[in-house]
Parts: sequence; structure tokens; C-alpha cells
Amino acid sequence: MNQQITLKSRPEGRPDENNFEFQELEDPQIKNGEILLKTEYISVDPYLRGRMRDEKSYIEPFKVGEPLESMIVAKVTASQNSDFPEDTYVIGMLNWKKEQVHTGKDLKKIDPSLAPVSAYLGVLGLTGLTAYIALDKIGQLKEGETLLVSGAAGAVGSVVGQIGKIKGCRVIGIAGSDEKIEHITSSFNLDGGINYKTTSDMKKAIKEHCPNGVDVYFDNVGGQILDAALQNINKHARIINCGAISIYNSTEVPMGPRPEGILIKKSALMQGFLIRNHTEDYNSAISQLAEWLKAGKLKYDETVVEGFENTPKAFIDLFDGKNTGKMLVKV
Amino acid sequence: MNQQITLKSRPEGRPDENNFEFQELEDPQIKNGEILLKTEYISVDPYLRGRMRDEKSYIEPFKVGEPLESMIVAKVTASQNSDFPEDTYVIGMLNWKKEQVHTGKDLKKIDPSLAPVSAYLGVLGLTGLTAYIALDKIGQLKEGETLLVSGAAGAVGSVVGQIGKIKGCRVIGIAGSDEKIEHITSSFNLDGGINYKTTSDMKKAIKEHCPNGVDVYFDNVGGQILDAALQNINKHARIINCGAISIYNSTEVPMGPRPEGILIKKSALMQGFLIRNHTEDYNSAISQLAEWLKAGKLKYDETVVEGFENTPKAFIDLFDGKNTGKMLVKV
Repeated sequence: MNQQITLKSRPEGRPDENNFEFQELEDPQIKNGEILLKTEYISVDPYLRGRMRDEKSYIEPFKVGEPLESMIVAKVTASQNSDFPEDTYVIGMLNWKKEQVHTGKDLKKIDPSLAPVSAYLGVLGLTGLTAYIALDKIGQLKEGETLLVSGAAGAVGSVVGQIGKIKGCRVIGIAGSDEKIEHITSSFNLDGGINYKTTSDMKKAIKEHCPNGVDVYFDNVGGQILDAALQNINKHARIINCGAISIYNSTEVPMGPRPEGILIKKSALMQGFLIRNHTEDYNSAISQLAEWLKAGKLKYDETVVEGFENTPKAFIDLFDGKNTGKMLVKV
Repeated sequence: MNQQITLKSRPEGRPDENNFEFQELEDPQIKNGEILLKTEYISVDPYLRGRMRDEKSYIEPFKVGEPLESMIVAKVTASQNSDFPEDTYVIGMLNWKKEQVHTGKDLKKIDPSLAPVSAYLGVLGLTGLTAYIALDKIGQLKEGETLLVSGAAGAVGSVVGQIGKIKGCRVIGIAGSDEKIEHITSSFNLDGGINYKTTSDMKKAIKEHCPNGVDVYFDNVGGQILDAALQNINKHARIINCGAISIYNSTEVPMGPRPEGILIKKSALMQGFLIRNHTEDYNSAISQLAEWLKAGKLKYDETVVEGFENTPKAFIDLFDGKNTGKMLVKV
């Protein structure tokens, strides 16, 4: 029997499983021009929390009672559309349904011979593209500079750190467990790591790990870790505001030390980044990432949760940092 | 008798006249290679407050007991240096002294036939250069965009607003009195102005004056006005952090709403600007500004305080916004 997951209610603060509802659906039938998609992998991402709020943003909010959606890899299991023959793998913004009917519009075919299909939700998907394009457009890393990255074991951060090493930088990662720190330094060859959960003075810890100061800070978390990074930046530093998971669940306006004084003093830049504004750069970025993958210069992690029924939990677990690399649900 | 003004003690919070000391000096004598300078105009600027703190910044802090310094226009009254004949006007970072001996190193000769010499401390000096170069490098104004500027009647802000009009933008200025608002809209032709001292809801006021949102915010003040501007920015907005006079006197770390969420949502940029990093652009900027001046497209104000003895008071008055345009002391 087909199933979907809808937004039952908007979360207040941290989401929980009661915000989600499972509904049984009739098995879908396709008409001329349509295809039937079987969901293979669902991407769960922190930014989805923003769409659960009833407020205008860069993307429409989810509606209560309607199915959620995110990037999904699906297989065509029946087709009346010659552009998408049976057994084709596609990726696109799709509903959280086990099966769905689609016209094929805005779906992208993916090549399972280049990499496992799940990689298209991670290192070759929006998270890898985010890392590559944000570093390219805002970071403008120069050899020998120091790159600091938060969420360093996460989907975006792990690619950021490895690109930093490919570019010849000193790279320090921030993550939330000793296992993650061990992982990013041993598997990804980062120059050092800071476990923010066991570090009381982040400003000092960053200073110790970045004795020449921070030239580029790739921020996936916002909040107090951003504050500590700002206190260690060099002249002409670039801060990439890519995510702010630490404040996404805030119910009040999150307050912090004002950054304008430091930005002036250091002639530094803070710039927000949204991958959806850079679609024209996707193809060249995917080529470069795939080349590094093939050459063994770029590795990736996935945390794969099994079972459609565990999708809400996988999403909620993001806020406890339970993932290493891209968090995916295998249906 | 010659005189100098020294930093007697470092201010806590708002500076007052007790932080300054007047000292009598012997009349200076020049040796071979030296020139004698008579101070004509002293520039007093908010950034000097930062140098009164005992902390590392982009420029050395003032030392207690030593003379203060700022940009000064001086006249050569005696010369044993053929590069600087008698009666030459020069500008440079000079001590707060009525007369001083100098080698001429790092001084720039100025042309009194192009504009009154005081203009070289304002519209043709660092404040005009700051307006022009920051708008050029960070603002990247496009015709039809909306430019919001704080400190709009001040030395930098008044040039910013006029350049915005020259570039074909809608320009709204923020200032601290109805007279200033009247002045910037009537003399400088800005499209509107907001008196922040009589406006309780700045977010709403900016929204009303900028119905299409804010594309570039040129910030001379920081603090709550910056917060209100951020809540009105458009996608791809550029925020130029040029000054933060509202927080310069803070004795505690100034707190405010975190900007990272908005920066991400709007793919916006906040960038600190220091004119001293852009010396290579000074000459071309001065040419353009002088051309606009001659063509009558650019006007400027000076608030000229008479008397060397009033220099500390003129500086302190900056923090009450008592100046319209560049604040100068005529010695």
C-alpha cells in the first residue's frame, strides 16, 4: 500500500514526531505522458525546518495537512513518457511518498555508473554543490590560508574541509563528538578538530588551532560558534553564512554580540549563501567534484536510516548531530 | 606660544574634556631637510574614539600623555626642504599641535585653486573617498535600486546620498533632527529622510520609505538602526559596514539580534570597509569627485568650530550628532 508523510502541525522549537502524520494512499495510476516513481532515497536536511514555519522565505512554506517534500532519488517503475523510460533513475524535489505519479518536469536523470545513486543527494548533489560553489564564490581560498569549518563532519562541511585540503590550506573542523573529530582528521586529513560539546572556551580553542588566524570561516551552525570564530578572524576574512542550525529552532529572536565592529576593524565580509541562486554553476561543479571523487581526493560519508517509517526521526536527529555526512533515508 | 593636546586618560564610555590635556610647548626650530607647519584645519572623526582604547586594531592606539593626531591641513611657514617651499599647503596625519616640525614624509601637497583647502579634509579627503570607494567596491549600485544611508547629513553620508542620486537610485537618508532631514532632502535632493530620534518604529519607517525594499544599506552607525535596516533588505542586498558610532562608546559587548539568519535568507552581504586599505584608488576617486564638484552635482557641508582650544569639544560633539557634514576645527 502506498503511503505519504504530511505536516500534521507546525513545530514550536525543536520538531518532534507528533508534527508528522502517516497516511495510507491508493496505489497510483499513470496516464499518457506520466511516469510512476518509486522512492529510493529521501534526503533530510536542516533547511526543511525553515519551511515548516508559516513565514515568507526564499521558498514556499509547507502547508499543514499536505505532504512534505525534499530532494529524492527515485526509480521509474512504469512510464508513458518516452523521455523517462522504465528503470531510469531521477532526482528532484519530490513528495515524501513511497510512490508517486509525475510528468517528469524539473526532474534530472542521474547516471548510476558514475557513482552510487545516493551520492547524488550528497557529494554530487546540493550539499556537495553548496560546499564547492560557496567556497568558490565567497571563500576564494588561497593556498596557505586557514579555513575553519563548522559542522565539519556533516554533509556540506565534510566536502568543504576536503576541498580546503585540495587547495593547500590549513583546515580546522568543528564537530560535536570525539568520534567525528577523529574521523575528519584521519579520514579527511584535516589539520585539527575541535569538539564544541566538550570545549568551554571556543574562542581560545580556535586560536590554538589557528595560530595564524582564520581567513575563511565556513559557517553551518551560526550562534555562539560563529561569535567565537569572528573573534579570531584575520584582515579581509570571508565568512560564509551557509547554515545556522543552532538558531533554526529558536522561538524568540536569537541575540548575540553585534558583529559590525569586528567586520569594520578587519575589513571582513559575512555573506549568506543559498545554492538555489547558483544553478548556472551546477554542471561545472559536478564535473569537478566527480573528477576529485574518481581520483580518490574526495571521500564522502552517508548516514543511511532504513525504512520510510523512520523519515521524521531521521530529520529530527539532525538537530542532535546524529549524522556523519549526509543523512538519508533508504525506502 | 605653541601648544599641543595630549590624551590625559582613556575615556570610559563617552569621552569628556577631562580626557584631554593642553600643554604649552617651546616654539619649534627646523633643521636642514625639515619644514615648519602651521596647523590650519584639524579633522575630528568618530574613528578616533577607537584609537583611544588600549587595544590592537587596524591602527596603533594613542598613548596616554602623548599628543593626539588626525588628518590636518597645514601651511608651510618655513622650509629647509626644497620639496615643500614656503606657503605650500599640505595634508597628512599630524599631531594636534598649533605648530610642528616635519620632514615632509607621507605628507601630500594640496591645490588650493581646485577647492578650498578645508575640502581636502572632507569631500575630497578621506570622508569623500570613503563614500565613493565603498559604494564602488561593495555597494555596486545599479540604476533604479534603493539606497538607504545612515548618518545621512554627516561627512561620509552626505556624499553617499548624493552619489546615489547621481547613479539614478532612490535614496533615503537617516539622520537625527528634522533640520537635517529637511537639509538632505532639499539641498541634496534625497527622496526622503527619517529622523531616528523621533521615530519609534524604525523597521516600519524604513519600510514606508523604501516600498521596494533596501538594495544597499550604507551604515555609519551600527546598532539598532542596522537591525531595522536588515529587516528591510532585498535578496542580494549589500550592507556596507563603514562606521558604528552608536556602539563606539560601549563599555560592554554590545548585543543585538543575530544577523546570520537574514543574511542566509536574503543571500545578502555585510562587509566592513576601511578606507586605508584602498590607497591605490584614491587618485581616480578624487578626480571623479572633483569633476562632480565642478559640475555642481556634488555639494558639501562643513561644521567649522573656531579655535584650537575647542578641538576636544568638537570631537565630543560628534557623538551627539552636532555636526552637519564634516566636523572641522579652524585653528
